[in-house]
Amino acid sequence: MRRYATEITEELTGERVHLKGWVQKRRDLGGLIFIDLRDRSGVMQVVFNPEVSEAALETAERIRSEYVISVTGEVLQRDPSQYNDNIETGKIEVLVDEVEVLSKAETPPFQVMDESIAEDIRLKYRYLDLRKPKLQNILKLRHQLNRSIRNFLDNETFIDIETPVLSKSTPEGARDYLVPSRVHEGEFYALPQSPQIYKQLLMLSGMERYYQIVKCFRDEDLRADRQPEFTQVDIEMSFTDQEQMIELNERMITQVMKDVKGVDIETPLPRMTYAQAMAEYGVDKPDTRFGLKLNDLSDFSRSVDFKVFRSAVENGGMVKAIVLKGEESRFSRKDIDKLETYVKTYGAKGLAWLKVKEGDLNGPIAKFFSEDNRKELYETLSLENGDLILFVADTEKVVHASLGNLRNKLAKGLDLIPEGQFNFLWVTDWPLFEYDEEAGRYFAAHHPFTSPKAEDVGKLETAPEEVIANAYDIVLNGYELGGGSVRIHDAETQEKMFRALGFTDEERDEQFGFLLEAFKYGAPPHGGIAYGFDRFVMLLAGTDNIRDVIAFPKTASASDLMMNAPSKVSGEQLKELHIEVDIEE
Amino acid sequence: MRRYATEITEELTGERVHLKGWVQKRRDLGGLIFIDLRDRSGVMQVVFNPEVSEAALETAERIRSEYVISVTGEVLQRDPSQYNDNIETGKIEVLVDEVEVLSKAETPPFQVMDESIAEDIRLKYRYLDLRKPKLQNILKLRHQLNRSIRNFLDNETFIDIETPVLSKSTPEGARDYLVPSRVHEGEFYALPQSPQIYKQLLMLSGMERYYQIVKCFRDEDLRADRQPEFTQVDIEMSFTDQEQMIELNERMITQVMKDVKGVDIETPLPRMTYAQAMAEYGVDKPDTRFGLKLNDLSDFSRSVDFKVFRSAVENGGMVKAIVLKGEESRFSRKDIDKLETYVKTYGAKGLAWLKVKEGDLNGPIAKFFSEDNRKELYETLSLENGDLILFVADTEKVVHASLGNLRNKLAKGLDLIPEGQFNFLWVTDWPLFEYDEEAGRYFAAHHPFTSPKAEDVGKLETAPEEVIANAYDIVLNGYELGGGSVRIHDAETQEKMFRALGFTDEERDEQFGFLLEAFKYGAPPHGGIAYGFDRFVMLLAGTDNIRDVIAFPKTASASDLMMNAPSKVSGEQLKELHIEVDIEE
Repeated sequence: MRRYATEITEELTGERVHLKGWVQKRRDLGGLIFIDLRDRSGVMQVVFNPEVSEAALETAERIRSEYVISVTGEVLQRDPSQYNDNIETGKIEVLVDEVEVLSKAETPPFQVMDESIAEDIRLKYRYLDLRKPKLQNILKLRHQLNRSIRNFLDNETFIDIETPVLSKSTPEGARDYLVPSRVHEGEFYALPQSPQIYKQLLMLSGMERYYQIVKCFRDEDLRADRQPEFTQVDIEMSFTDQEQMIELNERMITQVMKDVKGVDIETPLPRMTYAQAMAEYGVDKPDTRFGLKLNDLSDFSRSVDFKVFRSAVENGGMVKAIVLKGEESRFSRKDIDKLETYVKTYGAKGLAWLKVKEGDLNGPIAKFFSEDNRKELYETLSLENGDLILFVADTEKVVHASLGNLRNKLAKGLDLIPEGQFNFLWVTDWPLFEYDEEAGRYFAAHHPFTSPKAEDVGKLETAPEEVIANAYDIVLNGYELGGGSVRIHDAETQEKMFRALGFTDEERDEQFGFLLEAFKYGAPPHGGIAYGFDRFVMLLAGTDNIRDVIAFPKTASASDLMMNAPSKVSGEQLKELHIEVDIEE
Repeated sequence: MRRYATEITEELTGERVHLKGWVQKRRDLGGLIFIDLRDRSGVMQVVFNPEVSEAALETAERIRSEYVISVTGEVLQRDPSQYNDNIETGKIEVLVDEVEVLSKAETPPFQVMDESIAEDIRLKYRYLDLRKPKLQNILKLRHQLNRSIRNFLDNETFIDIETPVLSKSTPEGARDYLVPSRVHEGEFYALPQSPQIYKQLLMLSGMERYYQIVKCFRDEDLRADRQPEFTQVDIEMSFTDQEQMIELNERMITQVMKDVKGVDIETPLPRMTYAQAMAEYGVDKPDTRFGLKLNDLSDFSRSVDFKVFRSAVENGGMVKAIVLKGEESRFSRKDIDKLETYVKTYGAKGLAWLKVKEGDLNGPIAKFFSEDNRKELYETLSLENGDLILFVADTEKVVHASLGNLRNKLAKGLDLIPEGQFNFLWVTDWPLFEYDEEAGRYFAAHHPFTSPKAEDVGKLETAPEEVIANAYDIVLNGYELGGGSVRIHDAETQEKMFRALGFTDEERDEQFGFLLEAFKYGAPPHGGIAYGFDRFVMLLAGTDNIRDVIAFPKTASASDLMMNAPSKVSGEQLKELHIEVDIEE
């Protein structure tokens, strides 16, 4: 019976075993041939000795890297001087008496274990790159996470129900991928951005507890952690409220982290309102693995004779600061200039700073601080010699974006982030709407089906900006891991919501008429959540490249370099689909 | 704590319980109100009595069908005269003291339990139709099957690996659904017809054991048991052969049938070669739950002085017959005419017949049979009084298609199919190619990656029609449940295969160059199988409508009547995708 490399342990010494795999490396030494044989589990050193089998040795002489071979032989203890601590099987080896070449290999375009290969080459030869144990282990972890989530939800009597991929285009949200219909001339399906409407209809149909681990699609310009198709853990439940949803998800997270990482997560998980997250961290998904919180110095700034600070506050903006305790000597003027360049990408006009040295404030703006100012600042920020203070004075939006992102950058640069720590955090009480200056209208901060707090329903049409949603996001180490909400389940509130979003009655009925009608025939209260599954894998695998967690990922321009997709198709195909290509010259 | 209806049993008599659900029916009787409350588990009768709560009764008076309500009350034994054997909870009821209306309902377009509603109406209001226990139970069964398959494969160390939905168009196979690319002008993705190439590349990458339960897409004209998007259980394994694959799948089938249906399936499952299936059943997916095998009378027919039979055989065709034991009296001349009309749809020119009555052959063709002919036919077919013999004389293709389908039709009509029986069958030794008269070339009977039997490799280019494939289909009750094969894993054989399929070298390299290159860097022997998951559910659920097993199915014209998809999209969307609609007037 064939065994995996790591199934063979010292206890099998003296036994005859059978292995299959790829040749990772061949070394010839003193008339012997040593091969590192790689399979899904790991690597085993197999040895060819003419005294054991001339024939096997002869075959081995013709074997090259990435040949697929089958070997049989005896398990031997290595001499302690030959131990290899880099591999799990490093204390043993297999002395081969039979070998068969199952498949030859030409010299591959790169050595599998070579870490220096450019990513586009690795993506073109993805099947070679996937031979790396690192990537294989991530795919295994992905499977374990998938399995653990399913086990939890199955036990909680959730039912995996598949929803359509050929769906309908909706104008709200990101850009859709479209699929022309052959049967219905001039009409198109859209690939779903999420199964949101389907899962709500499943609640209306009385399925009560639904989940799905499902592909979703967004035709957006890609960022490092985005892909055109991504996988979502989608959950919906009837007769629930925010507390029940949070409790259920905390149990799931606890179970999953134990199963997949062997880590105990304490519950209840920490919670924070959106308002608090923005105030203290400047972002809606705070990384709580480190401090560096934002200090609000707006009130204080009124008393400082520094025009930049005062005018920001007087114009309705704010002044906030991050204090780097004891770090001032690590930051030269040049370093701080670089930080300033960085915050400018978030719209800040500048980055003011002060160093605390020899019991006093130092730096170009120190002169604006009176004796009283200094005293107050010392107290407010608990300043000590060695501290560096970084200020941004601007609108609330710019201050938070600048300092929130600067905070994350500083923590990485200063190595303040403890390894192997998983900080989960609920962010609750989101605003229901976001105002888009450019479009001149409100958009749903989550999606148009999120319910407002009961006490805010009256403000839907009068003061949308004040409406708080029954929405909850789960954040892990500064990444948005998932987002959920209790849904609107009556047609009246849903209609108000669409009006607040600027839909005309016609647009609303055209797009969502069937949903509003569905609400009229008995809709249970319901809520749900969706996790970004790829991102969850990414965070558990400790990589920051989303392509590492996807077997066949696409590039930033949404290309599959291996298959060469997208690609041209025949005119005949297009004709059948009633479309023509229309390329602008 | 809220309980499901069927969680409440007689043992809870006297206890106070809390239920939530939909009002299936309300009856007012002698000052009391009775409501059938439906939830995911089933139905509970809840009773409102003014002596228990005036307020609850008053609320109940306003409650209508499909209201969503929450009730609390005491579990009572019903009087035996009031037992309702139609529901699981028919011996008890709940006497309500508290009730809350969670959601009102207008009169729905149809009563949920009404079985007489046309399917297009039910599909438009799918969320109402899905309230039917029958459909909910099928979705639960679907989930159980999904779960059971996963559990089996997980335990066998298979890894669930997701493959792309935005993939590449390939000319071989069915018609692709295309997705225009916004970033790459004039180029298109294709939705995968199966993850075939990806799963083979995963084997080349050393993942060794892969599975996925995954959506696939075919833009074909739909038949009763087909949908434009369907779900496939996709499995692939390295270092395997046909026997290992069959053994693995038999263990999976045994496990799944036990888990989902509580049925013990005996293994090894029966097997049959493709040649035998065609010869004895006329089809490549025989339903072995009943007899009615085809009898080959070609040789015999040479001695019969009946031109139709003799010329068929002399022209290289055949004569076959089905014997219906003891059924002759059930078939009038008119009935047989109808059967003739049926076989004509399969190309037969006629349906000859004989009845065995009073020790002799009767019917219009009886006169052609000599005394010797009669004797021989009696012996060959073990004829007895009451038998009806149905003959088709034609080319092999027509004879098999006519009688094979007639056989299935007769079995249904004569009620010869035992209920609740699951007859699995392997069909092996398929031809590698099918010749298409119209296209004037060979096509792959399975797909172009199926390997030929080792001894037939030499015939790939010289006598393709004789090449037998390492292919195995699993048949359940006359349906193709799944199909698999051992794959080609060397570039040389794969290149021969493409030549046999009529690819030019340029076409081959354009479409599959990356795969042929991949085979050069160490490809393990590998094989796999894919099951039609929707069909599997259909057969286990005992329905013959594929739409019953899909939460949100499409119609025969690939429409989603509920969402109204496909639909028109904006010119702006099309412009971004560099396409124009091109409708012929």
